[in-house]
Amino acid sequence: MALIVKKFGGTSVGDVDRIRNVAAKIKQTYDAGNQVVVVVSARGGVTNELIARAKALNPQPNEREMDMLLTVGEQETIALTAIALHGMGVPAISRTGAQAGVVTDSEHTRSRILDISGGDIHEQLNAGKVVIVAGFQGADSSGEITTLGRGGSDLSAIAMAAVLKADLCQIYTDVEGVYTSDPRIVKSARKIPQISYEEMLELASSGSKVMQARAVEFAQNYNVVFEVRSSFNNQPGTIVKAEVPSMEDVVVSGVALDKNQAKITVGLPDKPGTAAKIFQALGEANVLVDMIVQNIGTAGSANLSFTVNKDDVQRATDVVNSAIVDLGGGQVSHTGDIAKLSIVGVGMRSHAGVAAILFEILAKHDVNIEMISTSEIKISVAIDLENADAVANAVHDGFGLDK
Amino acid sequence: MALIVKKFGGTSVGDVDRIRNVAAKIKQTYDAGNQVVVVVSARGGVTNELIARAKALNPQPNEREMDMLLTVGEQETIALTAIALHGMGVPAISRTGAQAGVVTDSEHTRSRILDISGGDIHEQLNAGKVVIVAGFQGADSSGEITTLGRGGSDLSAIAMAAVLKADLCQIYTDVEGVYTSDPRIVKSARKIPQISYEEMLELASSGSKVMQARAVEFAQNYNVVFEVRSSFNNQPGTIVKAEVPSMEDVVVSGVALDKNQAKITVGLPDKPGTAAKIFQALGEANVLVDMIVQNIGTAGSANLSFTVNKDDVQRATDVVNSAIVDLGGGQVSHTGDIAKLSIVGVGMRSHAGVAAILFEILAKHDVNIEMISTSEIKISVAIDLENADAVANAVHDGFGLDK
Repeated sequence: MALIVKKFGGTSVGDVDRIRNVAAKIKQTYDAGNQVVVVVSARGGVTNELIARAKALNPQPNEREMDMLLTVGEQETIALTAIALHGMGVPAISRTGAQAGVVTDSEHTRSRILDISGGDIHEQLNAGKVVIVAGFQGADSSGEITTLGRGGSDLSAIAMAAVLKADLCQIYTDVEGVYTSDPRIVKSARKIPQISYEEMLELASSGSKVMQARAVEFAQNYNVVFEVRSSFNNQPGTIVKAEVPSMEDVVVSGVALDKNQAKITVGLPDKPGTAAKIFQALGEANVLVDMIVQNIGTAGSANLSFTVNKDDVQRATDVVNSAIVDLGGGQVSHTGDIAKLSIVGVGMRSHAGVAAILFEILAKHDVNIEMISTSEIKISVAIDLENADAVANAVHDGFGLDK
Repeated sequence: MALIVKKFGGTSVGDVDRIRNVAAKIKQTYDAGNQVVVVVSARGGVTNELIARAKALNPQPNEREMDMLLTVGEQETIALTAIALHGMGVPAISRTGAQAGVVTDSEHTRSRILDISGGDIHEQLNAGKVVIVAGFQGADSSGEITTLGRGGSDLSAIAMAAVLKADLCQIYTDVEGVYTSDPRIVKSARKIPQISYEEMLELASSGSKVMQARAVEFAQNYNVVFEVRSSFNNQPGTIVKAEVPSMEDVVVSGVALDKNQAKITVGLPDKPGTAAKIFQALGEANVLVDMIVQNIGTAGSANLSFTVNKDDVQRATDVVNSAIVDLGGGQVSHTGDIAKLSIVGVGMRSHAGVAAILFEILAKHDVNIEMISTSEIKISVAIDLENADAVANAVHDGFGLDK
């Protein structure tokens, strides 16, 4: 008998039929003799409807009241899931975040988990019940209802698995697992049977949307083994866990492509401190900067380029334009025709020459590398958007990921 | 400065525009220098949607989970109302039933209030905030979420007013107050400026749907003065309070007509205990019986007639048919062409002859009285459904209620 935590996201519980489908999956695990704790999100779309109502009443709704409002989404789902399980003869009981003892700080809409007592979950499990817990939510020490922010339900599930010392945590989603690349772009992309936390984190930060980095980081910190799998079929998914020796044989485990980038280039006098001033201004304006390169030109001028999310490009340009006035003027240009291609793999650490192979593949395909950025287990290049999909396919297969 | 409790039902908070309208009413009272506690229901229709989803998953959903499910309705409304008030510059904070210290027993879907602490409501009021409380809901002593059942939000408001020692409790609804009769039937019906708890209760049990009897009884027990008024205009409504001497001048304060009745007639041997057996069987089947009359016939047989809600007529007929087998057989017939007309007034107590006046009016209009039932402050007659509206008009005006 194992203790298994299962998490189902908004699309998995989007309507009554899907909730019934989720209940059937839970029943299967329960009937096999396991103890099951289920973490669910709000039905897909509900959160957006609630936000729309709030904004219609007040364009800047109070965060405490937004938490009060949005937590009804999961509360509905936990009750419906329990009701569906009862209909299938499975004993089940629902618990709000507060009832499950999820204690957070008081930072409404983006609370951090301070502690999880679990409430009476072990008693309920020992009494033969499936326990359905509302994801995304908790309560602060004075009983105020809080939410964990984006990706909060994944975090709830991973944290619950850590506290309950679960044998496995299964994150059910609308994809079948983690792929060597985006199957919509790279035809030969394959599901990865297992992947390390670090690779998963690098993939998350490189445009792969399977899970928010925050939940993966938590799993890494508490060493929670989890599986990402589909809620719409019974295929095994991808197991995410700490690095194991055999993983190192695989030098590159995935290729990620982020087509939502824009590049901004600033030409300005090459003086110490100019780059610092520009990025300080961008930081104060809350613009997230991704890759950065600087080339020093011939006549004492420098070209500084960086990438930002496409949505932020106008704001970033405005910030830079006003910052360069203090720096004695300069030129600012931007382009949205940029894609970021990343290769990720823990094996890179011990294998030299991975970058060389990548550049060789790119050269063979006449791809101009506009920017390069690396981490211990990732190499990212900014390339022209136009042929990005074809290049991703070539890189993917070039590293043997199609086999 | 007064402490005023305002309650808004589901139609009053049915959508974003109506919530804005409710917030404007609250602001008006707040700006006039009053402390305001608001009790709200779920948006109209939400509860039925949630019930439909639950029943689609399980025709007999667990009551504890139904409470978990349905309480999201008011939780949404309290947050939206607070957000709307903030948008108008009014400080406000929302409270679930549990947070407002509404402690109930553990009878899910029909809990009784055991205690209300109010939580920190007085502190919030003293800090200048409007407090928005979720009606209909509470929590039992172990923190399980409970609901008060039908009419629960009215009860929440009245109970909150009692505990907080409010100066006034205003029940906002979709009618302008309590009328001398149903204005859709009786053209000359007038709004009653004030009425006693007892009259209100008799009207409630006679088909007037303004409020559930349970909340009125609670108000009577705790002597909470409340006003029933419209949420769609600014007219004064009807004040409901303990009987005051001047009220006795009004012999009849209202005429109620219930067109949702059916009559069942049983012909059976006139033996002691037969009626008891029939009503025992009906009670066990949870059929609510309203009026009862029995006539003894000539040849040792008896005709027993009673009225039930039209929806229950088939079930009641089945129950009686199986009960009379044990009693040696008999005849059962039923008709839905029945209306119950009631006149209500505390003044009746000290005025003889009210029944005589009623019967005289009915006779003048050639109305056959099929059944009669009386209480201390009410006389009800079952009459033919066909002319019931005209008769209600005649009785209403006959007792001078049009003036």
